[in-house]
Parts: sequence; structure tokens; C-alpha cells
Amino acid sequence: MTVTQDLAVRSARTGQGPDHQASLIVQGSDATGIVAAVAAALGRHGANIVALDQHSDNPSSGGDFFQRTVFSLPSLQAALPALHSELDEKLVKEFGLTYTLRDLSVPKRVAVFASKSDHCLLDLLWRHRQGQLPVSIAMVISNHPDVAEEVRSFGIPFFHVPSMGPDKSQAEAEHLRLLKDNVDFVVLARYMQILSGDFIRDAGVPIINIHHSFLPAFIGAGPYAKAKERGVKLVGATAHYVTEDLDEGPIIEQDVVRVTHADTAADLARRGADVERAVLSRAVLWHAEDRVVRHGNHTIVFA
Amino acid sequence: MTVTQDLAVRSARTGQGPDHQASLIVQGSDATGIVAAVAAALGRHGANIVALDQHSDNPSSGGDFFQRTVFSLPSLQAALPALHSELDEKLVKEFGLTYTLRDLSVPKRVAVFASKSDHCLLDLLWRHRQGQLPVSIAMVISNHPDVAEEVRSFGIPFFHVPSMGPDKSQAEAEHLRLLKDNVDFVVLARYMQILSGDFIRDAGVPIINIHHSFLPAFIGAGPYAKAKERGVKLVGATAHYVTEDLDEGPIIEQDVVRVTHADTAADLARRGADVERAVLSRAVLWHAEDRVVRHGNHTIVFA
Amino acid sequence: MTVTQDLAVRSARTGQGPDHQASLIVQGSDATGIVAAVAAALGRHGANIVALDQHSDNPSSGGDFFQRTVFSLPSLQAALPALHSELDEKLVKEFGLTYTLRDLSVPKRVAVFASKSDHCLLDLLWRHRQGQLPVSIAMVISNHPDVAEEVRSFGIPFFHVPSMGPDKSQAEAEHLRLLKDNVDFVVLARYMQILSGDFIRDAGVPIINIHHSFLPAFIGAGPYAKAKERGVKLVGATAHYVTEDLDEGPIIEQDVVRVTHADTAADLARRGADVERAVLSRAVLWHAEDRVVRHGNHTIVFA
Amino acid sequence: MTVTQDLAVRSARTGQGPDHQASLIVQGSDATGIVAAVAAALGRHGANIVALDQHSDNPSSGGDFFQRTVFSLPSLQAALPALHSELDEKLVKEFGLTYTLRDLSVPKRVAVFASKSDHCLLDLLWRHRQGQLPVSIAMVISNHPDVAEEVRSFGIPFFHVPSMGPDKSQAEAEHLRLLKDNVDFVVLARYMQILSGDFIRDAGVPIINIHHSFLPAFIGAGPYAKAKERGVKLVGATAHYVTEDLDEGPIIEQDVVRVTHADTAADLARRGADVERAVLSRAVLWHAEDRVVRHGNHTIVFA
Repeated sequence: MTVTQDLAVRSARTGQGPDHQASLIVQGSDATGIVAAVAAALGRHGANIVALDQHSDNPSSGGDFFQRTVFSLPSLQAALPALHSELDEKLVKEFGLTYTLRDLSVPKRVAVFASKSDHCLLDLLWRHRQGQLPVSIAMVISNHPDVAEEVRSFGIPFFHVPSMGPDKSQAEAEHLRLLKDNVDFVVLARYMQILSGDFIRDAGVPIINIHHSFLPAFIGAGPYAKAKERGVKLVGATAHYVTEDLDEGPIIEQDVVRVTHADTAADLARRGADVERAVLSRAVLWHAEDRVVRHGNHTIVFA
Repeated sequence: MTVTQDLAVRSARTGQGPDHQASLIVQGSDATGIVAAVAAALGRHGANIVALDQHSDNPSSGGDFFQRTVFSLPSLQAALPALHSELDEKLVKEFGLTYTLRDLSVPKRVAVFASKSDHCLLDLLWRHRQGQLPVSIAMVISNHPDVAEEVRSFGIPFFHVPSMGPDKSQAEAEHLRLLKDNVDFVVLARYMQILSGDFIRDAGVPIINIHHSFLPAFIGAGPYAKAKERGVKLVGATAHYVTEDLDEGPIIEQDVVRVTHADTAADLARRGADVERAVLSRAVLWHAEDRVVRHGNHTIVFA
Repeated sequence: MTVTQDLAVRSARTGQGPDHQASLIVQGSDATGIVAAVAAALGRHGANIVALDQHSDNPSSGGDFFQRTVFSLPSLQAALPALHSELDEKLVKEFGLTYTLRDLSVPKRVAVFASKSDHCLLDLLWRHRQGQLPVSIAMVISNHPDVAEEVRSFGIPFFHVPSMGPDKSQAEAEHLRLLKDNVDFVVLARYMQILSGDFIRDAGVPIINIHHSFLPAFIGAGPYAKAKERGVKLVGATAHYVTEDLDEGPIIEQDVVRVTHADTAADLARRGADVERAVLSRAVLWHAEDRVVRHGNHTIVFA
Repeated sequence: MTVTQDLAVRSARTGQGPDHQASLIVQGSDATGIVAAVAAALGRHGANIVALDQHSDNPSSGGDFFQRTVFSLPSLQAALPALHSELDEKLVKEFGLTYTLRDLSVPKRVAVFASKSDHCLLDLLWRHRQGQLPVSIAMVISNHPDVAEEVRSFGIPFFHVPSMGPDKSQAEAEHLRLLKDNVDFVVLARYMQILSGDFIRDAGVPIINIHHSFLPAFIGAGPYAKAKERGVKLVGATAHYVTEDLDEGPIIEQDVVRVTHADTAADLARRGADVERAVLSRAVLWHAEDRVVRHGNHTIVFA
């Protein structure tokens, strides 16, 4: 919807741009009247709804409700406390829902973990430089020093944290020290190390991984070799949130590419690499724009 | 497009299902507060929003607004008059919008026009029998009698209206007589005749055509031969609303399939046929479910 | 797979077309000179090579060799005995290869097994009637009588063989009696019964199955429910040769379609059905045209 | 096929690797015996056929014949003169065909022309560094200096040649001076200048362009704006050889990506960019591996 004349004038006075937008994610048990309550609450604060997506997983008999609303509000920062109070009152108390409200002008901060395969990492860095990824890349961490120079040429800090064998506790402690209060989520861009449950818990932020297969096919290591062995005609990639169950976390995005008997396992890896970087960049974009809602082991993706 | 009053009569005949749902399409100039106004109006009548899609084609500075809402309301038929009054008041008068409100338990009635190529026709008939297309197929009209028996084996009336040369006025008069008050839209399922502007106007209902190319490539007749001549590596199909400008109407859906130098023009036609029937069935389904909003020469598809 | 002598008899019955073509599949241990030997042997009999595909799975150090050659030869039937002698001499004795030679004017005979879901069955029947599948459909066998009338309307014999509980021996005996000497391969078009190892062996012909998932994901029953549970973003289908290991046989073809969180398990089944019938029809076409070579648990597909 | 014992021993002696391979492209009027003649000629020189693809555009009644053969021959350089003599004798004189024979161990040299949009250029540079593109990138030429530093960080020479208005003769003269004897083909990686017929002729090497639409849709400038205007549901990209007829040259590869009404023209450009770089990299790879045969305004792609 449009910025009304009144708001446009105020916007010009306060120096705030026309894109002062926020996202509001609401989820919980479905009930009649939620959409109206959200719209009314936003309306009372002069917010203009720019985009709205809604999903009910069982509209006819209860089930769960999910809504993503993007709205513009010229004096967003000033209005936030009152808006929070209202949403607490209307959504939390009345409907028993949960919500998150985020100023979209503040990009999420991300740490990218990488290893030797750099195609996913470079694709993220390049898209970020092109202005295609609304995130702030706080740092790149790798267990190999190879890409240090390239990463820094993008103006991004690089930290080399070696893996040092099966006991990952020392490396993970170093990771946690670097991440502490610095990032809003982590992306594993073909970081080939398994994270401990302790690390996942202590990091305290969402972690997105790219798995180089169409999950749940070929869980675990060496999926392209397994795909060649099984003789599949498509290979794929899966971006998912990391949980303690390896390769079992909620799937955000997947895609595939056609292969033939003539492709070797190395060819599958090469073709798959293109899918990996495409799938991961979509997942990161959607997470950055609050388009992904986790629900149990599923995601609702308002893309 | 539909008239609620008529629907109410038909609905009474068909009986009401447990999911008594209606669709509400709203469109017009964008303004602050539309979503809230719609949600509030529905809420006041006890309606529960089941699905909501919204699009603003220029959120920052005016532009147009489109919204599709599906809601359930136990006593839908009884509530419709009051709901209409309220929407007239709130949406038409206050916001200057237009809207259509339709009882989804009443399937749209469609006439399918076919010719010798029967793959699109048969696919629609089969999907309809499977319960995948929520339409009532009122009749099939063809300029060839070949498929008469097959169509009737699906329990659907078949009418043979020969083309009779370049002067189509007599055939079109017969078409209009058959369609009159009997259908809510028309589907041209590889009906290879060009419709006159008079016919399109007099029919008075939306007409969906499947063109056997990825429009705007290969406009007009013989697209597969043209595609072979040009040496393209993909062939496609386009479902669009028919306007007086041949192959220039608003596009609803498109898709493509890969071909190679080894494919002859006949191979392209064969591969393309699969895309044609898939694209047409999606377009018909979306139109049937009020998911397609026409706007100038464009469509908004809430699929 | 086929025996030339038998084909000669049948070919005489069907009459010879203007394009008297044959396929020659050669496979075995790779060696220098095979392509030249095949081409020379065909050349000596006046055959004109129409299409040639070749694959070496490890060109640099041994490995296996596969070649599909289609050639035309005006007096094919008369030339076959001498050509067989020459190929036995050159390919079998000198190179230790195996080969099959088949008159392409004689379509392979197929039995289609079906159950309640008829989309794959009907798609095969349609395509066959359209001239898109160069096979002779000898019969349709189903454990449900529902589609009998429809199948027979295509002019194809239908046999109802009930499943009768966990002991399949009686049903399978009936199947074998029907198939005996009548078919060159079997297609399971969503035939939801597991075949015994004895049946597979006794049938003595290739059996193609369509599995309603992107194997090896979601092996076994209920793949769409499992896919919904896992929250995947694509669903697929796999056509494969049947072996005693359920869902583990050589894959012929696979494809996928995109789904979202908004799709129910029933939606996944509906979307997947389109992929199933497309994938199965391609697999049947390629098998019918001798484009699929089995090798261990893999296929080489010269498509 | 395998390197025989004898050849393997010689290979070890001469220090030549097992991958000493060459490509042979044969084309001309179809006739019986060409495949055999090629295979026999190669066999007489001890060459081992590694891959063979063949296409006849009208097998039943004349037409044209195309064949790509890759063979290995340990003493390739030494054997080439004699092999050329034999092919001249057998293929040119006897069959009236043309052929090209190329040592695959010598990568083709390419100049990449770029402008401000760097996604296609960077993708080629990345893939080249990863070892995915068997070419030697001799230079990058741009009418803007922006990417100079980045290109040189890949160890590749960069030349800035400004466009200088509508008269391109001076810039093109500079281009020709740089290219002269230095490159085997040219890639226009979103180089937004139209080349003159004189330049195309004088360059004397194939020129590959990436057009940012699914040709022949949206020929000329601004295809994404045109696509948005037309309301298409897919946008695409086309790699083709450049001829004097703008956007009309032989198509090498095409692909598309799905878009919706919610995508702005800028979104189409962003989504299309991913397709452009993927399509261009495939076209360059195939050209580099002699997989693309030009024939009139078509290509035969043995991919």
C-alpha cells in the first residue's frame, strides 16, 4: 500500500526514507480473527501493510497459524515500544500466539563457516557485494587458510580456526568466542565438520547448512559417490537448519539437476556445486528477510 | 465476474458442504488500511480467514492493490446479503475498490472447445473425473466429430459445430447459442480457429487459450515448425486469456521442456504436447479457484 | 533380450515398413577397435548407420563398453542370418562381447499391471493410441475390476486377477499363465503389490516399475506421507527395473516437481501423479526403443 | 576403450600421459559407410575411440551428417600428419566431407569481452580457476575499467578499450589488434555493444554472445523490461554465435527460470542473471570441447 500524503510529509521531515520497513512474524494455534487483530493493531499505529502472507496448516479444524507481515511506518523506532505493548496485549494475551518484530533496515549479521570447497562461500560474497543479500557478513571462519586473501579482498574479516583432529572442543570454544554477541545466524557454506550438540546449543542462533544431496537421499558423507553408485538420474542439494540430528533438521530449500550415466562422481560433484550455491543463496536470502518460519521439523517459507 | 445472486440459487440446488467457503477478490488503487478493513468486515460476520494473498505492484508510491481472501462461514448463503452491503460500504465507497465474492461450493461452469488434437481435452476430462478440477464441464464443442464418443463416455455433452470456411459467422452464432447463460468461462483446448472480436465480446465470459509456444516467441500458426527452423533448445506452451489481439492476451501460465538438434518438428510437437496439457490444466485450475486476477494485459496469480 | 528367429516370424506377419531398421546393442569389456569392427560388419552387409551412441565407463583404463547402433537395411530379414554369423564371429569370438539385434519394425509386446490409481495406466494407453509408444500392449492385468471397461474401450484385453491376501502364489500363477510367451516386458503402472522373487524369475522378461518418490529417498510404502512428514520442497518419481530387492533395482528415469509447505500429503500425491506418468512413459518409450542398457544395478540410457 | 598393453608400454616410455586425446569433427552430406570409414582410419593409426556421437538430420533420404569422435593416441603429435593425409583421402576425396582435427591437450584461447555487469565474467573466471573450463583465457577486454583489478587478481590480462560513442571503428580497430593471432574464440559476457559486420568478419574466430532473454522472444535491448511489460511467467537466457543479424545467430544453449507477478523488472534481471551465467558457462564449455557443430543457422550440440 502507499505511503499516504500525511506520512510522506512526516517522512520528509524526519529524514527517514520511504523504505522504513519492519517484519512481523506471528505463529501459534489457529483461531478466528487473528488476521483482523494484526491488521487493526498495525493500523492503529499508522503502519501501512506492504506484504502479507498467511498459512494455516489445517484451516478446517484447528491446527497452526503462521503469518508474515511487512509494513512501513515512518517513525518506526519511536513507535516500536507502543507497538510491542499492543501486540503483547492482542496477540500474546488474547490469542496465545508468539511473535517476532524486526526492523528490516537493520540487516542480520552472519558468520560464514567454510572449508576447502569455496564455490558456496564465493557465491555468497559476490551476491552480497552486488547488493542481493541484505545481510551484514561479520566474518568468515575456515579450518583451512586457503581463501583468507580472497575473503579479505571483499572487505570481510577472515579467521582461521584449524580443526585439530576428532576432539573439536578447542576449535568450538574458539568459534563460540568469535561468534559471541556478534552474529544473528551462522551459515555453513560446505563446512565439512560435524558440529557438537553443545556448540549448536551454545551458539544460540540459527545455523543453516547446505547438504550436497537431495535429502533424505544420501544422508551423511560422500553423497555424490553414493549417488553415482545408486545410478540416480538427478543430483541435488538441500539447505536446512542444523539440529543435533545430522542432516535431519528442517529443510528450507532444495533443488536438483539432471545427470546421466556418462557423468562420473566428479562430474556429479561439479554439476551439484551449481545447485548447492543456488540453493544456499536462496535459503540465506529468505532467512535474512524473515521469510522462513520454523515449526517443529518443518519450515513455512513465504517466498 | 460471477453474480452472487445467481450463485445462491445454484448453491441451494447443490447442497452445502462442511467447508462452506467463499473467495473474495479485491482490487483497485492502493491505500493504507485495506487489509484491516477487509479483515474487520469479514470478522464482523463471523468469517474465518482460511487463506490470504496480497499484492501491491508499487508499495512505496501508489500503484495497484490486489487481494485474494478465502474464508469459511457456516451460514454463508444467509450471510451474503449483509456481507455484500458491508463490502459495498467499506471497500467500494470508502476505498474506491472493486470486489467479487463467490461461493466456492458452486463450481464454475465451463465449455471446452476442441479440434483434432485431443491431448489437452482428454487431460482436462480425466483430471475432472479424478476430482482435480473444481469445475462443472457443461459441454465440449468441436469442429470435428472425432472425439464425440470419447467425450460422451465421460458423461459430458458433445456438440459438433463445423467450421465451414473463412466466414465464421454462422459457426460463431451457433457457439453463442450453446454458451448463452450456460457457462462461466470457455477453454480453448487446442481449438485451432481464430475467434472474431464480436464473438469474444458477445460470449461475455473469460476465454482461456493454450498456445503451443513460449509466447511471445513464435506468435501465430505453426510454432513448432518455427521453433525447429530457429534451432531453439527449449519449446514451451502458454495459457492466456483471449483478447482481440491474437496471442497477445494476459498470460496465466507458461512452461518449457528441453529439446535437442536431434528432435524433428514432429518431436517438438510431441514433447510440447505434454507441456501444453500441463500448463492448460494449471491455468484452468487457478481460474476455477479464483486465483487469477486480470489487470490490464497482465495477471496476478495467487497460486 | 529378444530372439531374432521369433521376431522374423512375427515381422513377416506385420509386413515391412519403408524404414526397415534394426537396433544393435553391444556390451562387454572395453577394447580398441570395437566401433570399427561393428561399423565394418554392418557395412559389409550394406547397412546404413542411422544413429550411434557409445559409452565407455572408464576410457583410460579398462572398464566396460556399451554401444547402441540403429541401422537401415532394405532386405533386413533376408540379411539377418548372415549378419548374425558375422557378429558372432567378430564381436563374440574376437572381442568377447555380447550383443542383441532386433528388428525395430516389430514392436515389443507389453503387459501393463495396474491397480486402483489409473493415471499411469491411462497415460500409457493414450500415448499408445496417439502413436507415441512403439509397443504392442498385449493386455492389462489388475487386481481391481474398476478400469476394465475403459481399458477395453482402447481395444486392449483386460484381465482381473484379485490379490487374495498375503499368499500371492495363486495370483502369481495366474499372472504367469497369462504372460507366458505373450509379452516381451511388463510394466507396473502403480501396481501396488510386491512381486515375489519366484515370479520375477519365472516371468523371464524385464519388469519396469514406477515408484512414487525420488529414490532412494522414501523407499517402501507411503512415500508422499513420508515426504510431507520430512518437509521436503520437491517430490519426485522413479522408474526402475524390478529386482528382488524392493525399490533397489536399476533406475531408468527420475524427475521431480516443486511443492511448498502449503501442500498437504494429498496435494503431494496429486502433483506427484503428473511426474509419475511422465517418468513412466519416458522409461517405457526408451525401453521399447532399446535405448536402455542394464549393467549391474545401473542403466546406460541412450536417450 | 582401453589403452592396449602395447600402447600403455609405449606411453610409459615416451612420457606421454594416458589422456593424450584429440577430437575429430566430421560433417557433410550423409552417405552409407562414413562411420566405418572414420573408425577404420583411426584404427589404422592405433587410435582408441573414447567417445563417439553422431547425428543425421534426415537418415531416410539423404540430408546431412555430423560426427564427433574423441580418440586417444599416445604419439598424437607424431601421428597427426599421416592421419591428416588419410582423412583427406578417405573423408574429403571419397565422401566429399569436411573435417577438423584438434589436439585436446591444447586448450582453446579465448578473449572475454565484458562491460559493467560482471556476473557472467566472474563466473567464467571462477570456473576457469576451479579447472572446470578447459580454455586459456588470454585476456579480458572491457569498455569500463571497473573490473580491472578483480580480473588481474585471477592472473589474467585486462585491457580497457572505451566505447567512444556511436563510431565504433576506433575501438574495434583496437580490439582487432589485441585479438590478432592471440585467440581462438571470443566470448561476449554481457558486453552490451553491437559489433559491426566488419569486426565479426575481420576477427575471423567464432564469437559467443549471451543474450538475456529466451530468444527469439524479446530480441534487442531491454529484454527484462519487455518481459515485465508482457507479463511472462518465465525469463531466460540464450547463448548463441554472433552473426551480422543481431540476436539471430545459431543458438547453442538456453534455459529459463520461473518468475511471478510479484517480481519487478529489477527482480527479473536478478533472477535472469543466474540463468545467464549458467547458460553461458555451458556454451563456453561445449565450444571448448568441440561439442558444438555449426550448420547454417543451427547448432548440433553433442553434450
